[in-house]
Amino acid sequence: MPQANDSASRTADKLLFTPGPITTSPTVKQAMLRDVGSRDTEFIEAVRDIRRRLVALGQAGEDEYTCILMQGSGTCGLESVLASTIPPGGKILVAVNGAYGRRVVTMTQMLGIALEVLEFAEDQPVDPAAVADKLADDPAITHVCVAHCETTTGIMNPLKAIGEVVAAADKVFFVDAMSCFGAVETNLAGCHVDYLVSSANKCIEGVPGFSFIIAKLDTLKKTAGWARSLTMDLLAQYEGLEKNGQFRFTPPTSSLLAFHQALLELEAEGGAAGRGKRYRENFRVLIEGMTEMHFRPYLKPEHMGYIITTFHYPDDANFDFEKFYRRLSDRGFVIYPGKLTQAACFRIGNIGRISPDDVRALLGAIKDTMHEMNVATLTNDSTQ
Amino acid sequence: MPQANDSASRTADKLLFTPGPITTSPTVKQAMLRDVGSRDTEFIEAVRDIRRRLVALGQAGEDEYTCILMQGSGTCGLESVLASTIPPGGKILVAVNGAYGRRVVTMTQMLGIALEVLEFAEDQPVDPAAVADKLADDPAITHVCVAHCETTTGIMNPLKAIGEVVAAADKVFFVDAMSCFGAVETNLAGCHVDYLVSSANKCIEGVPGFSFIIAKLDTLKKTAGWARSLTMDLLAQYEGLEKNGQFRFTPPTSSLLAFHQALLELEAEGGAAGRGKRYRENFRVLIEGMTEMHFRPYLKPEHMGYIITTFHYPDDANFDFEKFYRRLSDRGFVIYPGKLTQAACFRIGNIGRISPDDVRALLGAIKDTMHEMNVATLTNDSTQ
Repeated sequence: MPQANDSASRTADKLLFTPGPITTSPTVKQAMLRDVGSRDTEFIEAVRDIRRRLVALGQAGEDEYTCILMQGSGTCGLESVLASTIPPGGKILVAVNGAYGRRVVTMTQMLGIALEVLEFAEDQPVDPAAVADKLADDPAITHVCVAHCETTTGIMNPLKAIGEVVAAADKVFFVDAMSCFGAVETNLAGCHVDYLVSSANKCIEGVPGFSFIIAKLDTLKKTAGWARSLTMDLLAQYEGLEKNGQFRFTPPTSSLLAFHQALLELEAEGGAAGRGKRYRENFRVLIEGMTEMHFRPYLKPEHMGYIITTFHYPDDANFDFEKFYRRLSDRGFVIYPGKLTQAACFRIGNIGRISPDDVRALLGAIKDTMHEMNVATLTNDSTQ
Repeated sequence: MPQANDSASRTADKLLFTPGPITTSPTVKQAMLRDVGSRDTEFIEAVRDIRRRLVALGQAGEDEYTCILMQGSGTCGLESVLASTIPPGGKILVAVNGAYGRRVVTMTQMLGIALEVLEFAEDQPVDPAAVADKLADDPAITHVCVAHCETTTGIMNPLKAIGEVVAAADKVFFVDAMSCFGAVETNLAGCHVDYLVSSANKCIEGVPGFSFIIAKLDTLKKTAGWARSLTMDLLAQYEGLEKNGQFRFTPPTSSLLAFHQALLELEAEGGAAGRGKRYRENFRVLIEGMTEMHFRPYLKPEHMGYIITTFHYPDDANFDFEKFYRRLSDRGFVIYPGKLTQAACFRIGNIGRISPDDVRALLGAIKDTMHEMNVATLTNDSTQ
């Protein structure tokens, strides 16, 4: 088992408590000290191995699922599914309980695809019964999209229950698992997933540069002729990768080499279960320490995931988020601003190559910063 | 001036004589040994500096031009211009003299944008007079697209003369300068360019992960509401970068850090003029050595650029390109297959962190390989 961060290998970089780019291991970064050709057999074998390992990480077989790597950000990966797997005349139901769901709505609108939106409060998970009702009401719907972990708050949506409802209605199930895949055990077939999208720089702990789409082969193979974009054509990208192991257009070779190393390190840590265990411990230490300092989490405990955690601003006029953020950053800890429509919050990510001890160091820095800022809601020093 | 490749810093990697990914300097790769947050001030300043330097590399002022960085391959960058800067009812004339021009045609068709194609033989440059005629014939045309260096053959199209014709007709001029920008001196305003696209892993000698679009501000700012895609929305990406220096969606941080270093090294080499000088020398040594071995270049000398050079297969039954490629690769030299519709050719790139001595080493390897393969057209050993 690799140590999350032994001080010997720690670089001088700030620790990233964000939803990505995240802190990566030294060996993941060192994997980029190479110049490989995109047609090189060594590189092609790395790409093949990445695709195989990602299907296996979804607890799926290569007879039923395949993995497609797509250049660009995770958002590009999401848009590629929208842009190329929905037939002319198709209609997608997007379940929304945060900013990333709303972004899928915007993408769908810009692509000119028919759309139904099912909106929930940002502190509430997507309700499978409400999805079932919508599907019963509107038979024109062909696809359903939901986020597994809505990164806006860190809330976990009930993937299996939603998948069952979608499958019962015989619709295509499209899952945005951007921020959690690789650290939350996911059985693709068991959750009736047709397309799952995540990206290189989240729980698998690679560097940014591409996203990946794990697709059910039966569903994917029906999409010929539906792509509205050449670069975002998922089926063509799949066929290219299958034909000769190559991307259709220049791949981000460095990011892919880093990612291959990251997948080996994920396996060494015990796969999604092992990684989830470390992240859960990061989360536990964080929640405990923040609560001690009287920070209030935005979500109820039963809805919280362990990927990223949202906290309300302290109810104190001395608190200034920009100042708080900058001072923490100066101390070597990068946190993340909020993205909520209704509440003033910030976020702390539990993912990346960070350990519970790193979280404790962050908590210490938060405490010091709050003292400096004279924020009154802090625990009295004497209780320490 | 940096040495192109001193043996001390040479890694064990094969040398890439390709149109990219190319061989990069050790210091460019080492710039990726970092974990930076995408909202970090250091990173944001690097992004700003990259954008500034790219505008300057186009000999332009920031009052007239801006640079937009776009995640994904160079092809994604080209598609972003097509997908977001052509109005509803707009029509593009694509001048084609190779596979990359044809790719723009395919992208345009998939986006459902009206299109006129002006096709030339692959060994002939785009003729500005023919472009002028087309524009006179069809007033519905709003945009004109041409490749500066058509990477299929390495042919250079007369950018300035075409730009003058396009400007005289008051059309928007869109240039694919993927494989040559940074090593061929280019004056954007002088060539009447509205959009120029290139990518990280070509003549600027970075690693792949993003493309860049240098856009004329006046033209770009008229495009509000025209984007057919969220991720490929050029104006929105520009506005995001201007607002807070950040990408709208996770940027390829490692590639960007490498690219920033690559730009510093480009400047140290004397900018596009200095880099062009080294590449021209690579090209000169290559052509001389290949001609000595009786390889015939595909293009006439007056049409050849110095970026990438296309050679006919030797007229000898013993020549087998796959074998030739593999044996050269085993010797540490990666060349590139052809992409021509009408002739059996292969390509050798002159770009990347390779020196004339590296080209000489390649020539030696080609000679040895040809001997091994018993290809008869070789220069007799006794003449050496």
